[in-house]
Amino acid sequence: MDTTFDFDRYDHIRPILWTGQALELLDQRKLPFAVEHVTCDDSDQVAQAIRDLAVRGAPAIGIAAAWGVVLAGRAVDAADGDEALRRIEPALQRLNAARPTAVNLAWALARMRRALAGAGGDWRQALERQAQAINDEDLAANRHMGALGAALVAPGSGVLTHCNTGSLATAGFGTALGVIRAGVAEGRIAKVFAGETRPWLQGARLTVWELQQDGIDATLIADSAAAHLMKTGAVQWIVVGADRICANGDTANKIGTYALAIAARHHGVKFMVVAPSSTVDLDTPDGAAIEIEQRDPGELHGVGGMRTVAEGIAAWNPVFDVTPAALIDAIVTEKGVVEQPDTAKMRALFGA
Amino acid sequence: MDTTFDFDRYDHIRPILWTGQALELLDQRKLPFAVEHVTCDDSDQVAQAIRDLAVRGAPAIGIAAAWGVVLAGRAVDAADGDEALRRIEPALQRLNAARPTAVNLAWALARMRRALAGAGGDWRQALERQAQAINDEDLAANRHMGALGAALVAPGSGVLTHCNTGSLATAGFGTALGVIRAGVAEGRIAKVFAGETRPWLQGARLTVWELQQDGIDATLIADSAAAHLMKTGAVQWIVVGADRICANGDTANKIGTYALAIAARHHGVKFMVVAPSSTVDLDTPDGAAIEIEQRDPGELHGVGGMRTVAEGIAAWNPVFDVTPAALIDAIVTEKGVVEQPDTAKMRALFGA
Repeated sequence: MDTTFDFDRYDHIRPILWTGQALELLDQRKLPFAVEHVTCDDSDQVAQAIRDLAVRGAPAIGIAAAWGVVLAGRAVDAADGDEALRRIEPALQRLNAARPTAVNLAWALARMRRALAGAGGDWRQALERQAQAINDEDLAANRHMGALGAALVAPGSGVLTHCNTGSLATAGFGTALGVIRAGVAEGRIAKVFAGETRPWLQGARLTVWELQQDGIDATLIADSAAAHLMKTGAVQWIVVGADRICANGDTANKIGTYALAIAARHHGVKFMVVAPSSTVDLDTPDGAAIEIEQRDPGELHGVGGMRTVAEGIAAWNPVFDVTPAALIDAIVTEKGVVEQPDTAKMRALFGA
Repeated sequence: MDTTFDFDRYDHIRPILWTGQALELLDQRKLPFAVEHVTCDDSDQVAQAIRDLAVRGAPAIGIAAAWGVVLAGRAVDAADGDEALRRIEPALQRLNAARPTAVNLAWALARMRRALAGAGGDWRQALERQAQAINDEDLAANRHMGALGAALVAPGSGVLTHCNTGSLATAGFGTALGVIRAGVAEGRIAKVFAGETRPWLQGARLTVWELQQDGIDATLIADSAAAHLMKTGAVQWIVVGADRICANGDTANKIGTYALAIAARHHGVKFMVVAPSSTVDLDTPDGAAIEIEQRDPGELHGVGGMRTVAEGIAAWNPVFDVTPAALIDAIVTEKGVVEQPDTAKMRALFGA
């Protein structure tokens, strides 16, 4: 990567640590009030940690599962990779079932299976190398995206982000937060704002904590204050992640992203989406083809365990929304940047 | 008022009740989990209830203070109104000091003073009549605004409101919520949505509870979900209150209102401001002249007493924002409606 940024200075959090003997997962359920780790000595403990949300974020889940396969291998004897694969297959099934809809989990398990197939007596080392590669490639991709995205930001800019797209959700550095880390490291980003992100408050609980750990000052705002913030001229870019990016550039992301994009366009503030290329789904032509998942209305009946709403109140709780490509100035991936995205530009970069 | 709506059907909440002997205030600090009243037997108890936020909302505070003056009169002997005014003046000062910045409080006390001046031996009755008039005029104004605003809404519409502008903040019926009550009574409004209204959650704690009491179904949403809601076509009007309306129609209101107005315009959804004419300030030419009050950043560090954010995190917490007149389709007051507001139209209706 062609850059001289001191990335390490702003990249201290590792949610997934392989000790050589066990997997240590930073327990995200307890943040920001306690920094505790869940120690996994076998693959079923990894499955449990994924199921219980001790680890969250699609890339982070995939990496944790890969180390879970390494732990599964330690529990069996086998002469070669093919025999090992047969013996650990039940453990792989249990890992896969921990979050059945997580694409990265299935992808990481498939990669681990391929590493075993045809491996000889050194199959344990092959597994460990593959898990480490999955981890390291994610981190490298995030740092590369960070540099690509930061290059779009003029020096002295303020940025606003939403939800948590950081070290906690990945091997480290993060996607949208990676751009913010790189922009701060390079001196381009002078001021960082983060929305609370109701109803789960990932911005309030995780994002500002994680930036604080790296010595990056971030200012928390109510989600509804973002438009007023833009009016004051304090931010020049909105930088967010993505759950899915369609063939035309329409982007599904955490609820509230779309409102930010509309307000950004109204104020002449630029809008950047940052995600690994695996998020791009060329089989989905545009946002109209995406079904918006509705979550439990109970998430709006309180905060944490504390109820704030009367009994019997209905709530509408879509988990994400779709920002049309026309409101997006740049889609940043490790394969490159698409500015003013449309189907032709997307296919040119991401097509087979 | 030229209407056949059955307003009473949707107007059961009275936050301020005069029993003939004492003042009963619905304790808004305990809603929605307990419906309890604070009983005030003397004027100092009323001042205490105002200071402690048992009663909130500018019109409601003024009305409570007026009844406080009636209670002050009961504690003194006087041959006529002028003598009574001298004797209760200390009590009036204490009432006025309970919320020194509340315009309606000072306005109500001034009206009560005028009722006493020149009154004869029946000064006690004059005081009680005046307090009742202040209460009844507020209720009548709200019902009139409700009818005027509802007439703008096409039958079968969905509406979204923000914060609490209801019975709880007034003598009854409410301002923006009054339009919603009238619209439901008339069959024009088929579906009501309310934003949570971070950081105080007045929408979640008060608005949906108050509508529930009147048998009006309301659906709670995260503030950040409003733009996506508009995209689905579920709402045709945004209906909000106002803290101050400038000479050109620019409107200061609870933080988040401006974001709703931008998203509304983006989706072709109409935007209505509902407030008594006392909210119109012709001495403030436009929104640029309004200083936005910043509140305690601690309000973003948690919900109620529960902390959700790490120590040492900065927060930016503007209490309101300004929606420019260009994004407002109608300003509704008891004096009439200004559509597509500008300075000329505003002065024509509200000028001296």
